[in-house]
Amino acid sequence: MSNAFFTPDAVATTLERVRAATPLVHNITNIVAANSTANALLALGASPAMVDAEEEVEAFASQAAALVVNIGTITAPQAAAITRATKAAQRAGTPWILDPVAVGALAFRARIALDSLAHAPQAIRGNASEIIALAHLRDGHAEPPPSGRGVDSLKTAEQAVDAAGRLARSTGACVVVSGATDHITDGTRIATVANGHPMMTRVTALGCTATALAGACLAVEPDAMVACAHAMVLIGLAGERAAREAAGPGSLQVRLLDTLYQLDRDTVTQGARIAILAP
Amino acid sequence: MSNAFFTPDAVATTLERVRAATPLVHNITNIVAANSTANALLALGASPAMVDAEEEVEAFASQAAALVVNIGTITAPQAAAITRATKAAQRAGTPWILDPVAVGALAFRARIALDSLAHAPQAIRGNASEIIALAHLRDGHAEPPPSGRGVDSLKTAEQAVDAAGRLARSTGACVVVSGATDHITDGTRIATVANGHPMMTRVTALGCTATALAGACLAVEPDAMVACAHAMVLIGLAGERAAREAAGPGSLQVRLLDTLYQLDRDTVTQGARIAILAP
Amino acid sequence: MSNAFFTPDAVATTLERVRAATPLVHNITNIVAANSTANALLALGASPAMVDAEEEVEAFASQAAALVVNIGTITAPQAAAITRATKAAQRAGTPWILDPVAVGALAFRARIALDSLAHAPQAIRGNASEIIALAHLRDGHAEPPPSGRGVDSLKTAEQAVDAAGRLARSTGACVVVSGATDHITDGTRIATVANGHPMMTRVTALGCTATALAGACLAVEPDAMVACAHAMVLIGLAGERAAREAAGPGSLQVRLLDTLYQLDRDTVTQGARIAILAP
Repeated sequence: MSNAFFTPDAVATTLERVRAATPLVHNITNIVAANSTANALLALGASPAMVDAEEEVEAFASQAAALVVNIGTITAPQAAAITRATKAAQRAGTPWILDPVAVGALAFRARIALDSLAHAPQAIRGNASEIIALAHLRDGHAEPPPSGRGVDSLKTAEQAVDAAGRLARSTGACVVVSGATDHITDGTRIATVANGHPMMTRVTALGCTATALAGACLAVEPDAMVACAHAMVLIGLAGERAAREAAGPGSLQVRLLDTLYQLDRDTVTQGARIAILAP
Repeated sequence: MSNAFFTPDAVATTLERVRAATPLVHNITNIVAANSTANALLALGASPAMVDAEEEVEAFASQAAALVVNIGTITAPQAAAITRATKAAQRAGTPWILDPVAVGALAFRARIALDSLAHAPQAIRGNASEIIALAHLRDGHAEPPPSGRGVDSLKTAEQAVDAAGRLARSTGACVVVSGATDHITDGTRIATVANGHPMMTRVTALGCTATALAGACLAVEPDAMVACAHAMVLIGLAGERAAREAAGPGSLQVRLLDTLYQLDRDTVTQGARIAILAP
Repeated sequence: MSNAFFTPDAVATTLERVRAATPLVHNITNIVAANSTANALLALGASPAMVDAEEEVEAFASQAAALVVNIGTITAPQAAAITRATKAAQRAGTPWILDPVAVGALAFRARIALDSLAHAPQAIRGNASEIIALAHLRDGHAEPPPSGRGVDSLKTAEQAVDAAGRLARSTGACVVVSGATDHITDGTRIATVANGHPMMTRVTALGCTATALAGACLAVEPDAMVACAHAMVLIGLAGERAAREAAGPGSLQVRLLDTLYQLDRDTVTQGARIAILAP
């Protein structure tokens, strides 16, 4: 794959492909993010559905164009559903992405996240603390390093790049570390996305939303690293454009949905800040 | 009943009755729609409560002015609660409405939706694919026809009118098929509502919200077909007025709540597009 | 403690302390309020996390700076989690606050709320009907008085002051009765907060949000009565400033988040209406 895929033009093409396909994105997500991410997927042009009953997830993950698994408010029944859904996705060839929310802070969800890796996610997206913790656990340590605090990250994305690379090579997944500059790696190459705005950290579930948009892009783009990098541009660009006229996080959230809906080839090619860092 | 009930003036009267009664509307709903529909019911002038514990639903459905059952993110415990709640509603004379979200796509929820029909809902509201699927299952087929895809509808409301009529006659419920033009039938008469705006399909849970507003109208209007048709005008009119100044689906959702709150006799009588199609 | 703590200046200081500490606030809450309260906590400057799996709540309540327990959409698994979480909070010295949503209307949640009082909450916040019902039950009555209707209050805050005082003395908690004027009591002193706007009653989950903000203040202020009174000022002031330019409850909700984010020493000291009523 050439670096031509990590360009503003290529992002615009992925956006157009999502809108043309309106991919059905199956979400197993948390009670905070459910409404926000459904709206963001609709605004982008995808077709979201939240389905997490153990009785339903296998059938749905098999027919969906992508599966998004988010453990933000995980419960035991939802954990059982995640096992079934990710197994079914793997079997059916449905690309899926894991959002290991707060994985470093709680052993129960750490186990669920780790176990799900057996079903070969195409991608994993988290903040620096989450990626460092998951990589550490995947390395075989019983406990995560003391780096997370609830859902916040106390590390920068740059500090997590090594861990992300290790996690990517070990799992075969593309790993996204969100931060002021997002870092996306498949274990060999590293791409960066510099879109976004600091006020976005004051709106809940935007990390979950980024993961969901990556799911939509995975539905139309088989190269997970390309799909994820493009999704990070789309959410970051929508957020930074929304922030320009936002009086605070309330209006930022509303405008972000409007902006996702309005994005087109021109705004994307003018605004995308995407690059290949290595090799 | 005369056609005088399917007029803009009659819709305005129902709105005023909801506001005067502030009916307690019991919702068993999904995690995507819970916040949106609570806000829409409050904006309209009703009093929403979301209660879905098996231990609580019988008592609550008995004391509520209406019950709204939505299977959008159904789980086994919620299914058990729906059985109890709908039975209690039937016994207590609480009018109730079913929203069979994605019923054609998943066998588990199809069974739950079908079983609930034994408790005599006053109304059922869905998109064309959902109504066609539920009618087909109610006819005794083991599988729905291949018409749905997740929560989207691949059919127009017009294509579902026959199925809606069959379902209405079989269950005794008023059946609403949402679409560019909504069709409302009791199995004999058909009313249409032409309010709404295409951008509404890009905001999540507006179908669920329509069902919830129908619940509020059922609380004050014993003729289910009148209540449902009026509710479709109220949500459609609020949506189309909101869309006029919305930059996208984010601001549409916000303005829709403002508009529901602002609707009055004048705006309703000027804007309602309701008609009796047959007989 | 002097009355100097119940002044606009003292509220501004608490706000600054929350922002400096960005306290981790553990929420066990309902599906309607989850998104709204997470956003309000972020807008204020706290760090929210929603965690309600039985397997996780003990560890999380022990490491959090405050715990918020809301029974709005209680289920049996969540009730078990509440038992564990509040016990862990008590053991770890994590301050916690109870929001007994609709406690007068439903026996199942009344039992859960009552039982949780054994784990020594620092504070309880409800509307007048809820506080009257909980106090009545705490007095040993098997049934609440017939005062509530779903989540609405049919009483004024003033009518609940006696019950609030009794509940405070019996539990050792600060009790907040929300209303047109909020009343806050520790069983001896009574403070009042006159901020707020009537349109706030048309936005869902603002009571839950008030409770969550009180949790954030409890994380930085050990005197629960001071923390709660200050939180009532912050939510009330944000709401009334938001209402000035809101066209309805949709825009009120968005602006409220913006305003919470914008509040500073000047706006708080100019706008806070807080007083000590007694003794």
